[in-house]
Amino acid sequence: MSSDAAEKRVLEAVEKRRELVNEALDDDVPMKSPERLYDATRYLLEAGGKRLRPTVSLLTAEALADVEPLSTDYHAFPALDGAEIDVMSAATSIEVVQSFTLIHDDIMDDDDLRRGVPAVHKEYDTETAILAGDTLYAKAFELLSETGADPANGIEAVRRLATTCIQICEGQALDIEFERRTRVLPEEYLEMVELKTAVLYGAAAAVAATLMDADDETVEAVYRYGIDSGRAFQIQDDVLDLTVPSETLGKQRGSDLVENKETLITLHARQQGVDVDGLVDAVDVDSVTEAEIDDAVATLEAAGSIDYAESKARELTANAKDHLDVLPDNEARSLLREIADYLITRGY
Amino acid sequence: MSSDAAEKRVLEAVEKRRELVNEALDDDVPMKSPERLYDATRYLLEAGGKRLRPTVSLLTAEALADVEPLSTDYHAFPALDGAEIDVMSAATSIEVVQSFTLIHDDIMDDDDLRRGVPAVHKEYDTETAILAGDTLYAKAFELLSETGADPANGIEAVRRLATTCIQICEGQALDIEFERRTRVLPEEYLEMVELKTAVLYGAAAAVAATLMDADDETVEAVYRYGIDSGRAFQIQDDVLDLTVPSETLGKQRGSDLVENKETLITLHARQQGVDVDGLVDAVDVDSVTEAEIDDAVATLEAAGSIDYAESKARELTANAKDHLDVLPDNEARSLLREIADYLITRGY
Repeated sequence: MSSDAAEKRVLEAVEKRRELVNEALDDDVPMKSPERLYDATRYLLEAGGKRLRPTVSLLTAEALADVEPLSTDYHAFPALDGAEIDVMSAATSIEVVQSFTLIHDDIMDDDDLRRGVPAVHKEYDTETAILAGDTLYAKAFELLSETGADPANGIEAVRRLATTCIQICEGQALDIEFERRTRVLPEEYLEMVELKTAVLYGAAAAVAATLMDADDETVEAVYRYGIDSGRAFQIQDDVLDLTVPSETLGKQRGSDLVENKETLITLHARQQGVDVDGLVDAVDVDSVTEAEIDDAVATLEAAGSIDYAESKARELTANAKDHLDVLPDNEARSLLREIADYLITRGY
Repeated sequence: MSSDAAEKRVLEAVEKRRELVNEALDDDVPMKSPERLYDATRYLLEAGGKRLRPTVSLLTAEALADVEPLSTDYHAFPALDGAEIDVMSAATSIEVVQSFTLIHDDIMDDDDLRRGVPAVHKEYDTETAILAGDTLYAKAFELLSETGADPANGIEAVRRLATTCIQICEGQALDIEFERRTRVLPEEYLEMVELKTAVLYGAAAAVAATLMDADDETVEAVYRYGIDSGRAFQIQDDVLDLTVPSETLGKQRGSDLVENKETLITLHARQQGVDVDGLVDAVDVDSVTEAEIDDAVATLEAAGSIDYAESKARELTANAKDHLDVLPDNEARSLLREIADYLITRGY
C-alpha cells in the first residue's frame, strides 16, 4: 500500500475508535456532585485529543483475538481464556491517566493553554485542577479493576498501570531537573522520554494483552512496541517543533530553542561542537523572529543533528514494528504497524 | 478494664505496630533516583504520625485469623482461604494514601506546617509536592497489587481503594466549597466528613478483610466500623480544637472559629440561634486572645453545642464497636474496640 493510502487508512481507524472511546468516556467519567470538581475532570477530556493510546489498546486486543476490526463489542470482548472482558474499560483507563498527567503537568509547568483551550488550572483554579487530576487518577484504577478479566490478569494489569504511573512521575521529575541542569547526556534525555512519554504507550498495549490472557512473551513484545513507538513519537515531536511552520504547529516554531529546552537534537549538536545556547538570542516566543529560527535550524541541519534525530526515530519505529511479529498476521496488526509509522510521519 | 488501663493497652498496641509499619514503609517507599522526588515522598512519612489506619488493617487481619496479636509475620499472614498474604503491604498502602492526601491538601489549603515540620510544598516546592503525592498515589496501588492474596480478593481490594480515593477527593472538594458558601446543613457537613476522613478508616479495615477472604457481610461490617469511628474521630477533632489548651494542641485553640471553619458544633449553635459569625472578632490566630476564645466556648457550651457534638461522637463510636460483633471474640477485636474509644477520648 502507498504511504498516502496507509495514512488515510490509519486516520480512519483512529477516528472510528476515537468516537467509541469518547462515548465510553462520557459514561466512565460522568457529571456528578460536587459539580465543579466533576466539571473539571471532564473539561480536558472534552477539549479533544486523538485518543491514540486507547486506540493502541483496542487494536492490540483485536489483533490478539484475531477478529475483523470493529466487528466485536469492546465491552464484551472475547479474551483468549474464554472470559468476556470490557477492553474498552482498560482503554479509557489509559486515556484517563493521560488526562490526569496533562492536568498536573500544566500546573507544574505553568502552561496556560492545552489543546487550544485554557489549562484546567487556568479555567478553574489550582486547587480544583489538583483535585480533578487526583480524581481521574483513582478513576483509572477503578476502571481497570472492573474489566471482568480473569482476576489474576486484572491484578497484573493494575500492577503494570501503577508501576507505569510511578515511572511517569519520575520522568516528569527528570524533565524539571534537566531544565535546572547545565549538562544533560543524550542517554539521560532518552531515559526521561521513555519514562515521561513512552511507558504509557507501552502500558496501553501491555495492559490490553494481559487482560486478553496473552502469554508473557507476547505481553512483553507489545510492551516494547509501545515503548519504542512512544520514544519515536517524542523525538519526532522535537523535530516538528523546528521544521513545521508556526501556523500549522499552532504555536511558535522553535519554541523549544527559545525556552532552552534540551532535546535529542540540541544534545547531538552540542556533541558536534555547536554553540546551542547562542543559537537564539530572543528570550521569549513573542520576541523571536522567523529569520532567527531559520538560521538556527540551518545550523542544526548543517551539524547533521536533525537528520540524526529523524533517523533515530525511524530506527525506533522499525524496532517497534518488528516487536509485533508475535501477533497473528491480521488487519489489526497492520493497523498497529501503521500507527507506529503515523506517529513519526504525521505533519504535526 | 478501667479506661486508663484500656488506654495504656491501646497505646502500646498502636506503638508496637507503628514501629513495624515504619520499617515496612522504609522498604516500600525507598530512596531512589530522581533523588529530590523520592526524598520528598519520604519527607512527610518520616515526620511522624501514629499509623492508626494501618494499625486498624493489621488488627482486622489478626482478629479474623484469630491469632495471638503480634505472634504472626505480617508479611506471610494466614488468610482464611489458606493463602499466605502480605497484609503489611495492604496496611502501608493505606498509610501511603493518607500521606499523599495530606501533601496535596496542604498545597490546596496553603498550610505551612504539618506534623510540626514545614509542609512538603514549603520544604521543597509546589511542583515537587504535586509529583511526590502523585508518586505515592501510584505506589499505594502497586503495594495493594502485590499482597499475594487470591487475585479475586486482590482486585476487589484495588476497586475498594480506588473508590475510596475518589470519595476522598469529593470530600476535599466539598470542604473547599463549604468555605465559600454562606450556609451548610449539618447533614452536608457529616457527608463531607464521611468522604474526607471516614472512608479511609473504612477502607483500612475492609481492604484487610477482603484480602483475608472474609465473607461479604464481615467486610461490610468492618467497613462500617471504620466509617463510624472515622466520623467520630473527626467530630472529636473539632471539639478538641475548642477545649484543649493551645500548648497541648500545638496550635491556637479555637483556630476553627477564627478561620470561620464550619463544624458540627457551629452548625448546631446556628440552629440554636447563636450568632456564630459574631463569636470571635479577631481575623487571624495571631491577634485572637484566650479570653475571647473562652467567651466563645462558654456561649457554645451554653447552647449545648459542644455536648451535642460529643454525644454524636459517642453515639458513632458505640455503633462502630457494635459492628465488630461479626468478628471472633479475641484480643485483636478488643483492641479494635479500644481504638474506637481512643479516637474520641484522646487528649489531642
